[in-house]
Amino acid sequence: MKLELQRDGQVPLYRQIANEIRSLIERGVLGPGARLPTVRRLSDEHELGRLTVQTAYSELQAQGFIESVVGRGTFVSERPQPGTLPSAIAPRVGGSLAELLDRLPTRLLLGQATPAEETFPVRELKTCFGRALQQPSNMAYGPVLGEESLRIQMSRILLGRGLAAAPESILITSGAQQGIDLAVRTLTTPDRPVVIEAPVYPGVLELLRSRRQRWLEVPMGEEGLNLEVLEELCRDHRPPLVYTIATYHNPTGVATSQAHRRALLELAEKYDFLILEDDVYGTLALDGRAPVCLKAMDHHDRVIYLTGFSKSLMPALRLGAMVASPGRLAALTQLRGATDLISSSLMQVTLAEFLEAGYYEAHLQKVCELYRQRRDASGEALSELLPDCACRLPQGGLSLWLELPADIDEGELFRQAREHGVMVARGQAFFGTPAPAGFLRLTFATLGKPLFRQGVAVLAQLIEAQRRGRLQGDPLV
Amino acid sequence: MKLELQRDGQVPLYRQIANEIRSLIERGVLGPGARLPTVRRLSDEHELGRLTVQTAYSELQAQGFIESVVGRGTFVSERPQPGTLPSAIAPRVGGSLAELLDRLPTRLLLGQATPAEETFPVRELKTCFGRALQQPSNMAYGPVLGEESLRIQMSRILLGRGLAAAPESILITSGAQQGIDLAVRTLTTPDRPVVIEAPVYPGVLELLRSRRQRWLEVPMGEEGLNLEVLEELCRDHRPPLVYTIATYHNPTGVATSQAHRRALLELAEKYDFLILEDDVYGTLALDGRAPVCLKAMDHHDRVIYLTGFSKSLMPALRLGAMVASPGRLAALTQLRGATDLISSSLMQVTLAEFLEAGYYEAHLQKVCELYRQRRDASGEALSELLPDCACRLPQGGLSLWLELPADIDEGELFRQAREHGVMVARGQAFFGTPAPAGFLRLTFATLGKPLFRQGVAVLAQLIEAQRRGRLQGDPLV
Repeated sequence: MKLELQRDGQVPLYRQIANEIRSLIERGVLGPGARLPTVRRLSDEHELGRLTVQTAYSELQAQGFIESVVGRGTFVSERPQPGTLPSAIAPRVGGSLAELLDRLPTRLLLGQATPAEETFPVRELKTCFGRALQQPSNMAYGPVLGEESLRIQMSRILLGRGLAAAPESILITSGAQQGIDLAVRTLTTPDRPVVIEAPVYPGVLELLRSRRQRWLEVPMGEEGLNLEVLEELCRDHRPPLVYTIATYHNPTGVATSQAHRRALLELAEKYDFLILEDDVYGTLALDGRAPVCLKAMDHHDRVIYLTGFSKSLMPALRLGAMVASPGRLAALTQLRGATDLISSSLMQVTLAEFLEAGYYEAHLQKVCELYRQRRDASGEALSELLPDCACRLPQGGLSLWLELPADIDEGELFRQAREHGVMVARGQAFFGTPAPAGFLRLTFATLGKPLFRQGVAVLAQLIEAQRRGRLQGDPLV
Repeated sequence: MKLELQRDGQVPLYRQIANEIRSLIERGVLGPGARLPTVRRLSDEHELGRLTVQTAYSELQAQGFIESVVGRGTFVSERPQPGTLPSAIAPRVGGSLAELLDRLPTRLLLGQATPAEETFPVRELKTCFGRALQQPSNMAYGPVLGEESLRIQMSRILLGRGLAAAPESILITSGAQQGIDLAVRTLTTPDRPVVIEAPVYPGVLELLRSRRQRWLEVPMGEEGLNLEVLEELCRDHRPPLVYTIATYHNPTGVATSQAHRRALLELAEKYDFLILEDDVYGTLALDGRAPVCLKAMDHHDRVIYLTGFSKSLMPALRLGAMVASPGRLAALTQLRGATDLISSSLMQVTLAEFLEAGYYEAHLQKVCELYRQRRDASGEALSELLPDCACRLPQGGLSLWLELPADIDEGELFRQAREHGVMVARGQAFFGTPAPAGFLRLTFATLGKPLFRQGVAVLAQLIEAQRRGRLQGDPLV
């Protein structure tokens, strides 16, 4: 392979090499599957350092232009380059879906429980980061428990959830997921089954699977966990821990009723288990006030509380908090130190400044108003376009739990939607054991009314096509 | 207790309460140990919400003014308020040490292996953070493997360590400690003993203890791990994993020789173990170039490589990277997702911008020059003031490993130094089993020549006093 390189040019050599090869691929000189010379050969041919050539190959690989197969060599990729849209599907399902898709600007992300990007308070965050940078000690190692300024602010914020927690009873974590990991590792052993909800936040399943932890599933009802099933499991298995999102459950959106909360705490006392309360959606109340958290009603030290800012503010902070009694907090803190030392002091102080300035309350007011409108619009779209799907609109959180008609194949619908650029989460992912198929999780938070409607219209068309295909004995692939 | 509160004032009520109580403590009205009214009583007396009073107490507690004892109540603290200096010690050890301490501006932090705060590149970081904030997607959830822009830059940076690693073979972690945690959890089981160095980075010991992992210790010599001992242990125990800092070892500063590196890799092949290479000090070469990392010499896929930016840039980024072969990287990535999902995308992109702009290379050049001067100055101070302590000056990293004279009690010296405001790390903390006492770890990086010298002078005085006290049969407490 002959490359034109300018050794005294402004552009670094590795980038010149990458640009040349990319150009050969784009012009079709190197077709899909074509083998590239080895690093050694190319560097010898052009009298280049091997690291220079390696860097160029790394860059091309990162961009998806080439692929390297261990023991075989480096080849031009078969797969399409990043940035290409899913192929048009007009020939497959006919006019109206194609028209719909023609109007889609890009992929519709309807599946992830994530806040709307346009709400991120960029200006305020920049200000607070600038303030945090004024103290060099904010860039050094801080206490494992977390920065004091942030724990003081968290103490104040938690009052809004009905919880009076002194700053020294709060452990700062890298998001709520780390809180779950620390709690499970500290409070359980893999052989004693923990209780989880069904459906449940999939991050819990991943964690339990990663440590080969046994678990038991209790169905979520409209009032919260099915307590009859829970009590039966408690009698038979004596679980040490019950994980629950009592306020705006992911994925069902259920807010556990007051009666159920009290009964759950009583069961914890009766059967001697701890409750791991995940409250990441607790500040996202769309109708009136959220119920106070379980931990606020916990008079017998049965609840370990955790929350985070990924849902109510932005995922990239990677900050959350746990509240537990002193002995448990000490064990959690010790494990946290052994696991990854601390969360970024810089981000902690930035968030503390953000909270202290009152930006968080203002932000919550704004996003809850936006999400309320979007939730209502999503309800209209669903009842109009998917009238035979069941969905209870939630009073808070970010999730919609959609029950499909009995004749529709969840997996097929999920895959087709993905193929057509509409990303939803399939129900199966929220169950720990082979589960009743027929659910999708959507979020109403990320898209404005017209785009959400278009996404739902695509689902409606695909359901229609699935039925038509079956009638014709000609499955749509 | 009667408090003067202004209900229509600008200052929030909880802060008024806190201020009033703090003033009572500072004026001596409430002495150490005095009991405060319960939250309920104070709120009833002043017709305040309980949460308001609770918040005031939380604030006072965070500031160290009061303490709460579960089941007993809330009391004015006995301990000194934060910010007070260690008590003067002139009466205890006589003139010259007192004079020394009089000149100390504050505590001398000589024990932690941390970069010098004055080197933190604040301006550049702020610029890069601002750039990262321009893309809302940088604040959302990103890939578990890490942001592509950062992996591309890491790929480039690792070339400087002799390692050609494509971006897709790199997993971004929350600091090197997380890399160690993920590797140990993925590659070992608690019952099979892993091999660690003696002395060893204490974060490894904490991790192994937290998971009740068995371990074996191999002494560090001047050339690296003692390979005869290692081979013997391999024959008897077949360890799955050997943890090592081959380049500028913490705490001894040893750079493992080329011959030892090759021999270690051969042993890995012969006895079928993996090497977990911790390379966090690899970019801190003070004399000439650092040896290339072990992973760069690894032709049989025996090495899992990890590094981080806490030592070479600043701890608050909480960012590091791992390199492993595809199968192992997939397992590490899966566990990472289950543990805490991702590292902050915002910080990742900020670091990627920092690296891409070339700021890192400039920073390394600057800090290595500074640390070289400080290391040389520390060598002079040690040989002058502590001539009977043994210490080999390291060729890189941040640590000094000081061997005390045989008659000196390490624990006593450590405690006395701490009491007098000179913070060092005691040798025992670096051994996993009861170890030969008589070592301290110091860092030469954080303090300028005069302050380092003063710290060493305090140690010299304390050693002197320890000997004098023993001669007089009158131990210095």
